[in-house]
Parts: sequence; structure tokens; C-alpha cells
Amino acid sequence: MGDSRPIGVFDSGLGGLTVLKEIHALLPKESTVYLGDTARVPYGNRSTESIIKFTIESINTLLRHQVKAVIIACGTSSSVALKEVRSHFSLPLIGVIEPASAQAAATTNTNQVGIIGTNATINSKSFETKIKDINPNISTFSTACPLFVPIIEEGIDPDHPIVTNTIKYYLQPFSEKNIDTLVLGCTHYPLIATQIQSFLPTVKLINVGVSLAHTLKQTLQDNHLNSSQSNPRHSYFVTDKNINFNRIASNFLNKNIEIQLTT
Amino acid sequence: MGDSRPIGVFDSGLGGLTVLKEIHALLPKESTVYLGDTARVPYGNRSTESIIKFTIESINTLLRHQVKAVIIACGTSSSVALKEVRSHFSLPLIGVIEPASAQAAATTNTNQVGIIGTNATINSKSFETKIKDINPNISTFSTACPLFVPIIEEGIDPDHPIVTNTIKYYLQPFSEKNIDTLVLGCTHYPLIATQIQSFLPTVKLINVGVSLAHTLKQTLQDNHLNSSQSNPRHSYFVTDKNINFNRIASNFLNKNIEIQLTT
Repeated sequence: MGDSRPIGVFDSGLGGLTVLKEIHALLPKESTVYLGDTARVPYGNRSTESIIKFTIESINTLLRHQVKAVIIACGTSSSVALKEVRSHFSLPLIGVIEPASAQAAATTNTNQVGIIGTNATINSKSFETKIKDINPNISTFSTACPLFVPIIEEGIDPDHPIVTNTIKYYLQPFSEKNIDTLVLGCTHYPLIATQIQSFLPTVKLINVGVSLAHTLKQTLQDNHLNSSQSNPRHSYFVTDKNINFNRIASNFLNKNIEIQLTT
Repeated sequence: MGDSRPIGVFDSGLGGLTVLKEIHALLPKESTVYLGDTARVPYGNRSTESIIKFTIESINTLLRHQVKAVIIACGTSSSVALKEVRSHFSLPLIGVIEPASAQAAATTNTNQVGIIGTNATINSKSFETKIKDINPNISTFSTACPLFVPIIEEGIDPDHPIVTNTIKYYLQPFSEKNIDTLVLGCTHYPLIATQIQSFLPTVKLINVGVSLAHTLKQTLQDNHLNSSQSNPRHSYFVTDKNINFNRIASNFLNKNIEIQLTT
């Protein structure tokens, strides 16, 4: 049976479900517990102090479900809080920054990498710093795209002019750079990846969920934490039941799920 | 000197500054204390229970500044929480729903009134219910426009195609109705009122801040609470110092202000 304890996946909201989807695909024998802090979403514009506090509280909630490792699927929290938060816990904590940065550094041929994310993620320069740690010869170009999250959560057809105009508004500067790799530094962005790819057709897009699932697989192997159960369980918790969240969740995970309120 | 105690103005974020601007214009001798609960903004998609709790906490914060009356400048909170919250306090509490509803009912000639606001405001049907209480012959047509707030807070030029396409996306149904009056049921919307007016050129727009300032003036007179001081003081508090909030605040109030963090 290996270690059948679940993997905890934490996000400020529901975007982390796109990461969970990649974990389910790559590690089908692992049970998972998802926690979305929907009472306090979005973290993107909040202070560092608040983000650290909220992240610690959320990991403590997941620990009550006996998780063996925790994924910080929130780009903002991974950028701003993970380093500080790691000192409070002994189990493996994996954020979205390191795996995607490593993949971006390994992918680029021109050594010109673009990064998009929320205000807090971009202002923290965490992808930029990590990519340059890996390869100091890489130049990075970053832009915050704070409207992408509300537009995606509104469920607007990704081909609607609101979406394509907003992509153009934020990504026009990238089309004038020689980047060949673009980090989608927010878990919501895979839902408009097709339209971003159309606007920047020659650029390779890095999906943080895909990168992270591979890092998780390696971490479980290295720590002998793999599960071999054939019927893993998946549970989903939120801190507040927002309007539309069932629609948003099924959109992100590509299946219908039952979501419970944390107590 | 009359009663020189300040008027408290509460909003979930900074949108209430458009209401404060109208209060300053109509009641220039009144001191004011503004409180934006920016640590938990936006309320628009939150549960009723959370909104009531946050509103009570915020009024208690304002009471520590000896306010003589409290304006609930948040459309969501006024819609969802005000009735319940009134039973907890003895000072005058004025929300944005009643003044604007009365003005809309007095304005319409066709007895067809449109209403736009956040998800929570529209789902609560509070403008609709109040307008029909005043005049049961009025028909109302409501649409939630959840993207307007993030687009306005992003500071995008109101004439940019993102804004005009989003106005068209939400307001197209109104152009096919016989409405002659549209309630801008969210304090952010005055910043795109010109563009909304261009899309619906024959419709009279109701600005909740203007309506509310007139109701406040009457309430102060009725309760002998007017100030006659010539040098009123204005202070501004937020629960979290978000990115860009100084830019947003000066945009909403049309002047630069000093904002303090609540302790």
C-alpha cells in the first residue's frame, strides 16, 4: 500500500484545481485533500504579512487531515510566503515557483524568458530570481496581469473580445521581445492558454501545474512517501461558499466535484 | 458649533470614496472618518453570514472614532447585511439602497428601471424590492456586472476597448428594454458613468453617492446632528495596505489623501 496518507493542496481560491488536475493525471494512486481559502481570496493584492499568516493557517487545517506533503498551489503565496512558512513545518512543502522556473530555464534557447502573474507574484520577482539562480545568463521580462483572474472566474468565453483584448493589453510588450518561453505564473491562466498561444504563436508556455506535478512525483520517491493504493480518495474544502464556485471548480478541474465548507 | 462629531463612512474597499466625495460636496462642514476593509475586499461574492460579520466589526471600529452616524457605502453590505446589522446599533445607519431606490422611483416616467451591481447586490434583489415597495407599478430589470470593479481598479482608460466591450457585454440587454432610468448600484461605477451613458444615451443614471448624500443631509437635520464647524477634519483608514491603493483612492476621490492602517 505504500504511504496512503493524502497530499494536501492549498490555494487562496479555486485556481489550484488546475494544479490538482495535473497531480491526478501524473500520480493516479495518490489521495488528495484540497483547501481553497475562498473566504479571503484573492491574495494577489494583499500585504506580505497577511499572506504569510493565511498560508500558515491553511497548512494547519490540512495537517488535521493527516497530509504527508503540502502543495502551495497559489502563485502569490509561493512567491511571498513559502520561504518564511517552511521554517514552521517539517513535512515537504512544494510551491509553484521552483518547478516552473527550472522547467523554463531548461526550455529556453534564446535565454529570454517572459513571466506573467498577479501583482504580488510579479512584484516579488520570485520567478525572475529563481530562474537567474539557475542560469544567470537568462534575461527575464515580467508583466502583472491582474484582470485575467476575474475574467476567467466570470466564465466568459475565452474567444470573446473582452478576453482577447485583455490578452493584447497585457502581452503586447512580449511580442516585441525575443522571448521563446513564457511562464504562466498563475494557476488560472491554463484556461486561456490557447488564446495566449494564439497571440504569441512561437513561444513555449510553461504550465506551473505540470511542472509541479513532476517535482512532487520526484519528492515522493526521494522520501519513500509513494502510495500504491488503487482507490485513492479526493476531498475538497473551501473556507467560504462563494457564488458560482461550483461552476468555476468544475471548469478548472474538468469534472463535477462535491465541495465542503471547513469547520 | 452644532455636533462636531464625525460621520463614519464604511466600505469593503475604496469605492465608497465616490460616496464620500458627494458627502464632502453637499455637507462641507461635516468631519468624516472613512474605513475601507481592504483586507477582505471584495465582498461581492461572499456569503451573507460573512458580510454581516465583517460589517458589524467595521462599524465597531468606526465607533471608536466617536462617529455620530454611519454610512454603509458598500452596495453589497447595504443589500445583504444592513437590516440585520441595524438591530445591533442605536445611531443612524444609512445604506446605499434606500436613497437611490427612492430617487429612481421619482425619476422614471416609463416605470421601467434598470439596476446593475455586484453578484451579491443583484442576487439580493434589494434595489428591486425597495423600488417596488415605493411604487408597485414599476418594472425592474437587473444584471450583475462583476468585471466592472476589477477593470476600474486596474485603472484602465475608460475609453479602452476592454471597458467598452465589457459595458456592451453586460448592458446590451438593457438597450432592448424600454428603461429610462438605470441605478448604478455599486460605488465604483461613477468612474465609467460617461461610457455607460454613451452606450445608453437616453437613460438617466442614478449615482448612489449623490442620492445618499441628500438622505444624510436630511437625517442630520431631523436628528439635530448638524455640524457648523468651519474646519472639518477628514481621516482615512484601511485594514490592509494593498498594492495601488493610493492611486485608486486619489482616482475615486479626485484628490490626494493620506491613508492609515487600522490598529
